[in-house]
Amino acid sequence: MTACYDLVVLGAGSAGLSLALRAAEHGARVAICDPGRLGGTCVNVGCVPKKAFWYAAQWAQSQAFARTCGFRPAPEAALDWRLFRARREAYIASIRSRYAERLRAAGITLIGAHARLLASDLVETATGARLGAPRVAIATGARPLRPDLPGAELGMVSDDIFALERPPGRIAVVGGGYVAAECASLLQALGGEVELLVRGRLLAGFDEELVGHLAQAMQARGLRIRRQVEVRRVYRDGAVYLEEASGARLGPYDALLWAVGRVPNSDLPGLDRLGIALDERRRIRVDRYQETAVAGVCALGDVSDNRALTPVAIAAGHALAERWFGGRPDAHLEQEFVPSVAFTDPPLGGVGLDETQARARYGEAVQAHVHAFVPMSQALADGEERSWVKMLCVGQEERVVGLHAFGPGVDEYLQGFAVAMRQGLTRRDLRAAIAIHPTAAEELLLH
Amino acid sequence: MTACYDLVVLGAGSAGLSLALRAAEHGARVAICDPGRLGGTCVNVGCVPKKAFWYAAQWAQSQAFARTCGFRPAPEAALDWRLFRARREAYIASIRSRYAERLRAAGITLIGAHARLLASDLVETATGARLGAPRVAIATGARPLRPDLPGAELGMVSDDIFALERPPGRIAVVGGGYVAAECASLLQALGGEVELLVRGRLLAGFDEELVGHLAQAMQARGLRIRRQVEVRRVYRDGAVYLEEASGARLGPYDALLWAVGRVPNSDLPGLDRLGIALDERRRIRVDRYQETAVAGVCALGDVSDNRALTPVAIAAGHALAERWFGGRPDAHLEQEFVPSVAFTDPPLGGVGLDETQARARYGEAVQAHVHAFVPMSQALADGEERSWVKMLCVGQEERVVGLHAFGPGVDEYLQGFAVAMRQGLTRRDLRAAIAIHPTAAEELLLH
Repeated sequence: MTACYDLVVLGAGSAGLSLALRAAEHGARVAICDPGRLGGTCVNVGCVPKKAFWYAAQWAQSQAFARTCGFRPAPEAALDWRLFRARREAYIASIRSRYAERLRAAGITLIGAHARLLASDLVETATGARLGAPRVAIATGARPLRPDLPGAELGMVSDDIFALERPPGRIAVVGGGYVAAECASLLQALGGEVELLVRGRLLAGFDEELVGHLAQAMQARGLRIRRQVEVRRVYRDGAVYLEEASGARLGPYDALLWAVGRVPNSDLPGLDRLGIALDERRRIRVDRYQETAVAGVCALGDVSDNRALTPVAIAAGHALAERWFGGRPDAHLEQEFVPSVAFTDPPLGGVGLDETQARARYGEAVQAHVHAFVPMSQALADGEERSWVKMLCVGQEERVVGLHAFGPGVDEYLQGFAVAMRQGLTRRDLRAAIAIHPTAAEELLLH
Repeated sequence: MTACYDLVVLGAGSAGLSLALRAAEHGARVAICDPGRLGGTCVNVGCVPKKAFWYAAQWAQSQAFARTCGFRPAPEAALDWRLFRARREAYIASIRSRYAERLRAAGITLIGAHARLLASDLVETATGARLGAPRVAIATGARPLRPDLPGAELGMVSDDIFALERPPGRIAVVGGGYVAAECASLLQALGGEVELLVRGRLLAGFDEELVGHLAQAMQARGLRIRRQVEVRRVYRDGAVYLEEASGARLGPYDALLWAVGRVPNSDLPGLDRLGIALDERRRIRVDRYQETAVAGVCALGDVSDNRALTPVAIAAGHALAERWFGGRPDAHLEQEFVPSVAFTDPPLGGVGLDETQARARYGEAVQAHVHAFVPMSQALADGEERSWVKMLCVGQEERVVGLHAFGPGVDEYLQGFAVAMRQGLTRRDLRAAIAIHPTAAEELLLH
């Protein structure tokens, strides 16, 4: 027998939950299938535990500041990873419980099993149940990529970091994306001895000049960065070693972390047969309405070719629910001015175009305003680490088309400016605004 | 002999320096007179050392979080006030040096003496020099008020706090403004045992509901708040005691801090004779162009009836320089959407109208959206202190006319939203924006 719904969602991560909960608010009968833990990557092995590590890194640095600035006896404690993990997991469990409660309260059927598409309107779960619905959404997310190299199994992936019960010792972090940068920065801050091995650009999604400043700051804190590293194989000889394509040996390491990208969970049985198209990275191709090549089937979140960020996934789910069930036929994800922050220590953020993109699009009309300052907390502790702000403006009206910043506070202050950019922010607006003093955020007004 | 300038500025605080430096950029010959330390209240005994204390309070709380969340050995150190003071003063001295260098580089004559107005275009310094200029600006600031009560001399004022070399022990903080709230909160966080004695409203410039949440949070941290306290006299009987108007005795205390307001430094010789008008609080009345009742004489900063905030003083100085020397005859301080933050722990901020003001102006058209959440750093440490966001919207377009927030991160994230409000921010704009996750700032988008 087939149970009938208005909507079946595959995947209970950020995208799927957003869609399901909003659809139910509009009265839709919804089933959601996920064999894993509620909340998906973000809650369980992504943003949330990462941010918890980031807080721990902040607390570690606070102790260093406190030591320098006059706390006695000089505080110097190391993170007990086991205890911290228990705390963090308890917090994450509370988020999952709240989601479970919200699903229950919304009358959404939660099925804790894998599922596959039999047709565009029919889903079968691994437990044999059949769910029919005129609308099906694929929101199965992505998983860390483990490269296909000899010895690759000697390395961890980002999911494994959160299970560690002690600092990893000497660790090689292979990769250049934000997972690599964040893991490297936070592991170093919390007692690891990190070498970051980058093949191409570091943090290609962020402004290159500011990434350079982040890299310098990381190195000043003792992290080593090695560029143009192409790993050929991994082996254990007492410790772990990497062999480069050139034949050179890197190591010894106590541990290895692959942070070389993520694989979309688009390998669901039945997808090709239905004719759902994938891009070259095996992400499901969607249009601005999240529609796949098959009518009635949408995809969203990291399994789609949307930008792989939790807030983008949530916004896509919300917009899709509005379009399908909220009577707003044009509702769709707006992808301009998506801010993002790499939770390194200190954080790096950006919204809009980076300088390369801005110059490619606007040429000579681009003015770049770059400004550095030593934030007060650093200065009090005789630190020399500078914060940076970069603003890219266009034309006579000096419209802000890109805003990039590096330093303490960026994680929180970028959001409001990103909102203002959607409203057509210009340099004149910034000059006319009144500051909050003394803050890092005010540095965006003064220059 | 009279030395001739284009502009003479009395007072080298935030307002005076802003005006002088900008005027010099436009080519004006400028003299600036101040018998005290460069940077005035903000740099020396205001925002800057206060914020330094605030950082120390953050570091103290970080240690508490670190203890709970797994740093071992559990860090627990107390601030050595003497050491911290040395650090802080070194930092402040570096700011003063930079100002001195900027004045030198700009060719501005700095006269380290009191000065008085002989005429609207003639200033005489305490050292006997005469400075003539067609434009004179009074930016002499304000000083803490010590009430005229028996025993008042037993109390400190805020300036004195920064000279303390140890925590003050049991301290009564008398007052309800932001200086009172900040000093009380930070002294408590750094080892004081604080009782805050408030006569009327606490933090009258902020949204009353959120002030209530701040008061609760303060009390949960051990600070005592006593309301409707009208002090009649102070006396020492071993310890310090206060006598209320009712005759009741408060105490014993080891120390007392008066934070009952500030007196404008408008008691310059010659002001009345010139006909410069004061308001009922003895602040110099100015119009939107900072003009006093006397042509050619402007006033700005805390000696004027502008809002007593450093960024307002800076903006006023900047605008006045533009108007006088920059060829922008309509340049003036824009006083709408002035954000402000009380650097309590955690901070409280607001921009635009508070709920009472909004309802008075827009009546039934006001919608108040209030939202509470436990920030992640608290939750990880099993804390229960909630953060609050309050948004006041008007009309069908839901224009945001007031934004108020309490909790970690407010100090940094409010700025960008204040900019967006100047541009006509609506709830729709907030709903359409993409979040940065996980942050406190994103909570403004989701509700």
